[in-house]
Amino acid sequence: MRYTLTYVGIQVRDMDTSLAFYRDVLGMTVHRRTRVPETGGEWAELQSDGSPQMLELNWYPEGSTHFKGPYRNGHELDHVAFACDDVESAYRQLLAKGARPGIPPFLEGGTVLAFVQDPDGIWIELFARPLPG
Amino acid sequence: MRYTLTYVGIQVRDMDTSLAFYRDVLGMTVHRRTRVPETGGEWAELQSDGSPQMLELNWYPEGSTHFKGPYRNGHELDHVAFACDDVESAYRQLLAKGARPGIPPFLEGGTVLAFVQDPDGIWIELFARPLPG
Repeated sequence: MRYTLTYVGIQVRDMDTSLAFYRDVLGMTVHRRTRVPETGGEWAELQSDGSPQMLELNWYPEGSTHFKGPYRNGHELDHVAFACDDVESAYRQLLAKGARPGIPPFLEGGTVLAFVQDPDGIWIELFARPLPG
Repeated sequence: MRYTLTYVGIQVRDMDTSLAFYRDVLGMTVHRRTRVPETGGEWAELQSDGSPQMLELNWYPEGSTHFKGPYRNGHELDHVAFACDDVESAYRQLLAKGARPGIPPFLEGGTVLAFVQDPDGIWIELFARPLPG
């Protein structure tokens, strides 16, 4: 059997808030937003322009079979990584647009990295995109 | 500033166990596996053949600044989705290969889905790949 990784889905506490963050703050395009009658929930499919990577946002209402109680941050989702042109400016810009602070720019393995947090506390990594060529 | 989603990273309790699962059970290719002197940890980059989606596995040792205590499953990572040719057979095959059971095949929105769990309890969704054309 052949298995093909297609996307990773994160769970959000509030679909409108999270969509606004990934769309308006991180500039992603929302391809689809769909209600799921079976769970009473909703999912949305997002991509950054020029990248094939897909991110799914999932929301479940209280009382749904998929609702597992108050939202709890765990360890299994480590971070969601975005390339950008300049990590220092990106970090400042994202905080100014309402992202929660994470770790200000620092050096790791010769690369400048920084982290902010999305509305649910999910860690967003920022790194400089490799130079072309 | 332009931001480009590049990958999602999950945190694993044991790198060898998780690499074996994603490589040998789900057939992914490990492109890189790297130690990070700054954290004492390791990360690995994986892809399925024929898919541009990237998955990163992250591991941190006890005592590392990135080690946040005993591994705790939370809500923010909803699931990691894999397309396959036949959900019923895939579900049976993955359990036979050691994946933990999740939800046996069921119908949602006219699509057959199933879930298994990886070694850390992360939910793996199986769905039939769309027919070509």
